[in-house]
Amino acid sequence: MENALRRFEFYDKLREPEKKLIRDNALKKELARGQIMIGGSSRCNGVPMVLKGSLRLFRVSDKGREVTLYRIREGEMCVIAAVCLRGDHDYDFSIEAEEDCSLLILTPDMFKTLFNASSAFKTYVFNMLAQKLIMSMETIEMLTFISIEERVIEYLKQNADKNGEIRTTHEKMAVDLGTSREVITRQLGRMAERDMLCVERGKIILKKVT
Amino acid sequence: MENALRRFEFYDKLREPEKKLIRDNALKKELARGQIMIGGSSRCNGVPMVLKGSLRLFRVSDKGREVTLYRIREGEMCVIAAVCLRGDHDYDFSIEAEEDCSLLILTPDMFKTLFNASSAFKTYVFNMLAQKLIMSMETIEMLTFISIEERVIEYLKQNADKNGEIRTTHEKMAVDLGTSREVITRQLGRMAERDMLCVERGKIILKKVT
Repeated sequence: MENALRRFEFYDKLREPEKKLIRDNALKKELARGQIMIGGSSRCNGVPMVLKGSLRLFRVSDKGREVTLYRIREGEMCVIAAVCLRGDHDYDFSIEAEEDCSLLILTPDMFKTLFNASSAFKTYVFNMLAQKLIMSMETIEMLTFISIEERVIEYLKQNADKNGEIRTTHEKMAVDLGTSREVITRQLGRMAERDMLCVERGKIILKKVT
Repeated sequence: MENALRRFEFYDKLREPEKKLIRDNALKKELARGQIMIGGSSRCNGVPMVLKGSLRLFRVSDKGREVTLYRIREGEMCVIAAVCLRGDHDYDFSIEAEEDCSLLILTPDMFKTLFNASSAFKTYVFNMLAQKLIMSMETIEMLTFISIEERVIEYLKQNADKNGEIRTTHEKMAVDLGTSREVITRQLGRMAERDMLCVERGKIILKKVT
């Protein structure tokens, strides 16, 4: 566990009592891929640190549509959980494991102790909040400035394997790109007509995308 | 100035030397409505605190389109400036005065001193970052889940005076709602056809909007 904890840039800067607090007292939790951690009937009562795997934070609309807000990767902490647990803010999000995950959960008290005792921890939390704020603002820009065709092309390029194949569903693309399944299906149809790609079951094959 | 500073929830919790640091050393700045503070050739070299008025933070796309990210109001500090000045993150935004503004600008050194000396200041910065993060995530949701018609109706309701009149331009609505002027003009046209409103020069008059 010590090695996994070293991925958190604050860890080596903590004093031994604070390191021990995390190692000995944080709750260990394993999640299987696809498992919902927060959302629906599951509630969060601590701040998750991702030792292995990745979490996806998302929101569900009244009509049941989903949007991915951001991901929490190895060496990252879910700072928005810290924010909500302090009770100053109320924000109802969902989190699922996008891969198999190993987590450590800090209780609100442990978070508070570390936040007050360590300036390295405080700086980490400040940076993590700042980073997610900037990422969110970049998402706003993308949704505002970039056409759905440009977004789909970017997504396909980023997710293609070396043969130019992307294993995904229209539903998943819609959630990641902040639009509806219908819009994705229509857009892929148009691109297929222009011979840019080929849509198969559970798979998209890129042909001419520049 | 003491009264204006009291609007910042951390101010009364500072010790006298830190209060004095802000009062005596922060740079005073007045901005007229519409003045650009950051963006284009103007750069920010401090963290603005809004004593009076309101600032609007926005981004401009390569093609010259604008999107409003959020506003910084009386008693608020531009935390994203603090983030960028630390040099850990790079984000190129613009800020304009939406009303006539009185500001105090903290230099990076003053910000650092306050951040290290006062836990009330640190908590304020943490909360301000968290609040802007949640607001940004709510904007992402709005852009993803809510149709342009619903967004236009909400905007008109929020900005109408007691006679149901809204003084605005299609351009301004587009920037605030994260879409293009053409989309707003088309949408208002459709709503006018359905007798929901009446579009005049520089003014929209609500008729039947529920």
